[in-house]
Amino acid sequence: MIHRESFEVATRGRGTVDITREVAAVVGRSGAGDGLATVFVHHTSASLIVTEAADPTVRRDLETVLADAAADGDPRFAHDAEGPDDMSAHARSVLTQTSIGLPVSAGRLDLGTWQGVFLWEHRTAPHRRRISVTVVG
Amino acid sequence: MIHRESFEVATRGRGTVDITREVAAVVGRSGAGDGLATVFVHHTSASLIVTEAADPTVRRDLETVLADAAADGDPRFAHDAEGPDDMSAHARSVLTQTSIGLPVSAGRLDLGTWQGVFLWEHRTAPHRRRISVTVVG
Amino acid sequence: MIHRESFEVATRGRGTVDITREVAAVVGRSGAGDGLATVFVHHTSASLIVTEAADPTVRRDLETVLADAAADGDPRFAHDAEGPDDMSAHARSVLTQTSIGLPVSAGRLDLGTWQGVFLWEHRTAPHRRRISVTVVG
Repeated sequence: MIHRESFEVATRGRGTVDITREVAAVVGRSGAGDGLATVFVHHTSASLIVTEAADPTVRRDLETVLADAAADGDPRFAHDAEGPDDMSAHARSVLTQTSIGLPVSAGRLDLGTWQGVFLWEHRTAPHRRRISVTVVG
Repeated sequence: MIHRESFEVATRGRGTVDITREVAAVVGRSGAGDGLATVFVHHTSASLIVTEAADPTVRRDLETVLADAAADGDPRFAHDAEGPDDMSAHARSVLTQTSIGLPVSAGRLDLGTWQGVFLWEHRTAPHRRRISVTVVG
Repeated sequence: MIHRESFEVATRGRGTVDITREVAAVVGRSGAGDGLATVFVHHTSASLIVTEAADPTVRRDLETVLADAAADGDPRFAHDAEGPDDMSAHARSVLTQTSIGLPVSAGRLDLGTWQGVFLWEHRTAPHRRRISVTVVG
């Protein structure tokens, strides 16, 4: 059994948006018992992560780590048509995830106690981001 | 056809644990012919990788790379409630994988010659880590 | 319904190879309507990414980012049997993806406007790389 839904998330610029509830709702509507829910983001300057959902400072510190890995306005970058956060956003996407497969158990998303699913906007300006969830059950 | 199993791995603190055999055993018990086996770790300070299984120095060198990317005790980190390896462990998890989809061919895990599947413990203390394998066949 | 195919890509040494067309062709042959196509690379010194396909400077800049994260010939690396690009290639693979799950919608690969699927060769010498696509529909 396959169930697919897409939804959009409005971001407020760089930072994470908790989409755990939206993904869990798609799983619920799928009617799957046991299975797999694969989340996919249809963009190259926003990405997906599963991380600690309880303490928001975790996601703030993750920005620090990615800023070290791919700094805005790095003068070595050739791709800067959309500004200093253009290439760094692509790089940060590649260093995290475009898709994540999540287990579904007895009809529910089976995450660990502290896990949440997040869309990570890497551009500094707000964007609308499309996300698909494909449930196989 | 869906087959799901979870198992626990006891880690000895930071480092990798080869779970290829455990994942392959789940695939074997699933009865799947061709398909997909998705491995998922239910934690935010441990992660999954597929890497070279023959020479253990590879995984030691990988620690060096991740220590450069997210150092223990980085004074810029706000999240340090569980100690200097708390935030670095979350960051290292996000830079690697929470889930990996592996091909199943003729009833067997179809990895490349040198590939192994590893749980990567990022905390310095030993932990018990839960892993799920979802086989679709 | 499961459909599996493998194919080989000849790389010209370090750099990205667009495999979007090959993956889309497997999806087309699978006959799947809605579903999931999981791409997997059977190697530990080459990896997969989804990134901007329009401007090739993006992928050149991504090399800069990964070279910062894992430099060739880093004297701290113990694993160098195959030369200065041996360990850096393993590290760059682990920091990107070994597998990526892509949505299939109405029989087609459902990527975002700017997204392409790329094999990323991390060794400096040309290699033949095996890739599997597993379609669940």
